Amino acid sequence: MPQEPQTAGAGALLAILRDGRARTRAELVQLTGLARSTVSQRLDALMQDGWVVPTEDAIASGGRPAVAFVFNESVRVVLAADLGATHARLAVLDLGMSVLAEKAVELHVDKGPRETLDRVVVEFEELLGGLGRDLAQVCGVGVGLPGPVDHSTGRPANPPIMPGWDAFPVPEWLGERLGAPVLVDNDVNIMALGEHWTVGGNTDHLIFIKIGTGIGCGIISGRRLHRGAQGAAGDVGHIQVVSASEEVCRCGNVGCLEAVASGASMAAALRAEGVEAEGSRDVVTLLRAGDTRAARLIRQAGREVGGVMAAIVNFFNPSTIVIGGDIAEAGEHVLAGVREAIYSRSLPLATQHLTIRASRLGDRAGVIGAAAMVVEHVLAPDTIDQSVQTPPVDPAALGG
Amino acid sequence: MPQEPQTAGAGALLAILRDGRARTRAELVQLTGLARSTVSQRLDALMQDGWVVPTEDAIASGGRPAVAFVFNESVRVVLAADLGATHARLAVLDLGMSVLAEKAVELHVDKGPRETLDRVVVEFEELLGGLGRDLAQVCGVGVGLPGPVDHSTGRPANPPIMPGWDAFPVPEWLGERLGAPVLVDNDVNIMALGEHWTVGGNTDHLIFIKIGTGIGCGIISGRRLHRGAQGAAGDVGHIQVVSASEEVCRCGNVGCLEAVASGASMAAALRAEGVEAEGSRDVVTLLRAGDTRAARLIRQAGREVGGVMAAIVNFFNPSTIVIGGDIAEAGEHVLAGVREAIYSRSLPLATQHLTIRASRLGDRAGVIGAAAMVVEHVLAPDTIDQSVQTPPVDPAALGG
Repeated sequence: MPQEPQTAGAGALLAILRDGRARTRAELVQLTGLARSTVSQRLDALMQDGWVVPTEDAIASGGRPAVAFVFNESVRVVLAADLGATHARLAVLDLGMSVLAEKAVELHVDKGPRETLDRVVVEFEELLGGLGRDLAQVCGVGVGLPGPVDHSTGRPANPPIMPGWDAFPVPEWLGERLGAPVLVDNDVNIMALGEHWTVGGNTDHLIFIKIGTGIGCGIISGRRLHRGAQGAAGDVGHIQVVSASEEVCRCGNVGCLEAVASGASMAAALRAEGVEAEGSRDVVTLLRAGDTRAARLIRQAGREVGGVMAAIVNFFNPSTIVIGGDIAEAGEHVLAGVREAIYSRSLPLATQHLTIRASRLGDRAGVIGAAAMVVEHVLAPDTIDQSVQTPPVDPAALGG
Repeated sequence: MPQEPQTAGAGALLAILRDGRARTRAELVQLTGLARSTVSQRLDALMQDGWVVPTEDAIASGGRPAVAFVFNESVRVVLAADLGATHARLAVLDLGMSVLAEKAVELHVDKGPRETLDRVVVEFEELLGGLGRDLAQVCGVGVGLPGPVDHSTGRPANPPIMPGWDAFPVPEWLGERLGAPVLVDNDVNIMALGEHWTVGGNTDHLIFIKIGTGIGCGIISGRRLHRGAQGAAGDVGHIQVVSASEEVCRCGNVGCLEAVASGASMAAALRAEGVEAEGSRDVVTLLRAGDTRAARLIRQAGREVGGVMAAIVNFFNPSTIVIGGDIAEAGEHVLAGVREAIYSRSLPLATQHLTIRASRLGDRAGVIGAAAMVVEHVLAPDTIDQSVQTPPVDPAALGG
């Protein structure tokens, strides 16, 4: 595939230049320890493919010996898709993580992988077309799915709400149609990546917890996604709550967090009281309309989530906990309960500098995270250096 | 300090050679991408300091053009100390992690840092003397302390059972006397590093849980120690158990894991029944003598630990859980309870390949882990490359 820089050892140069600062040839020689001739050769190849350009300043002043080189973050684009049960968000970003175009569409994953992914391809092509770009400029595709994904293959692993998707080769299917490497992860992991991207360098350890129809979390440890041994990390929805609930969960156990604090469980509790409520969005709508039963349920759900998170704070000592998903739109109603439980049960050392807040990215967390995952992959020195066997990119395809 | 390789860029060579395989100059040029003259210059410096030696085979065959170079793991030694409340274990290891000498001594940390650490220095000097080695050959010192440690400074942070140690500059104090960099961490973290070292490359995510007087755990995520935002990660002793216990904990909360499953709590429960038991060792001794009350308590303690670990398995999805500390000597009595609770409450995906076992290293886990921490630090390319300002080592000091 022609989407990654294909010069052996070019990774070291791009890893330096991707911060956006221009460097002269002499600076690059010094920073890499490579021979001047090697640096020149690799710069030529990177420039030929459009990854690196001489700075305008150097060009304008003409004839100056110290031309500087800068990473061209608009040379390629990244496609990002965040698929939910019934809706999807799609976006096109450049390598500097600016969103160039995006849209939200109704899309039901229960129609199966082929129909769903064909629609994703069509939507991507439309977004690209609107930008005057085409598939030749796509250097990677990031996809979030609403179920467990085997990270090593990118295939769904027994996803409960995605009939027909088990082990479906999503990366290959999309890769053939979009002509670029495809990375797939579950939706909560990519949302955690998105939220971590917004706080960046100051936050090593972050937990993103999504409270929607179900409850799950994504974990950043040492600035990297912690997926766990089977990619099952973050499945906090079936942790037993300490409130001694005897509520039966869909998993067959009693007292699971999801059985007492998810949008589905709150909607069921409201229906049992004669209130019309189908899912988590209805619970939040009722809260906003001043329904005290919804407010009480959401506050208690926050406490139950906080009770489980209190244990996780003692164990993991994160610096930031981000609450997302539909129920996070209840804002302080849910945050207050979460904070109350964490501060009452976690150790002071672990909570003194702990930030507990609602998601900043909201609905966009998934596509931002999916794109961040792709950018990290495409610009990682290993990826670049391992792609020496790819055919050269047609420089004519790089304009636009 | 003269203990680390001091040639700029030598890190890249040592990082390759430390696996113990011999390489020719041409192979090193190819593997590093450095110029042949640069490789030669760096090899000369590393050989002058004894870090690298020409292979015997190449020397014996004399005159062959392709001399190979090999890492000399016996050139330096590492000192490791694992301090408990009343006992310490000390060891001298080479850079290949072989234990050259070790001993266990009675040493009470409540005597304060100066008296305790002076004794540690004396014991290290005796161990070195017995090997015909001296302090000039020490390239690093690893220390485990029975309390929280600020990782960035290596100083104890409000350690509850170490009067006088709060913020004491352990690395500087020991560094001045031993003439080498000193790395300090809490005892459970270094035990986790030790257990992870024994399983090595196959295990990315491991949890070591120590059940002794108190209960704490060390966490390996992605093959690295997860210390958390304040270095407080792993403090599982004060997580609330789901068995609705009303037992008051020393921390002031009720229902903490330590209040129902630690050696101290079991000994207290036995005393309440009129049985003489001071601490966790007595509980295990009673079990071995056939005391059914001790057996029942240990089995139940295992279940309580397992209940907390079940939540952690769902959250973290480790591949291995290692049980250590005095109570781990109860073997299957405690493991059975832990497994029972984890298998009943964790998700099948997270437990299908999960290993739950007792510590392999036992009392040695701490010193092995402390040494592994130092070896990683000393031989990390960054450490080596940043030590260009250190004075050259006297080659005469390297023999022995």
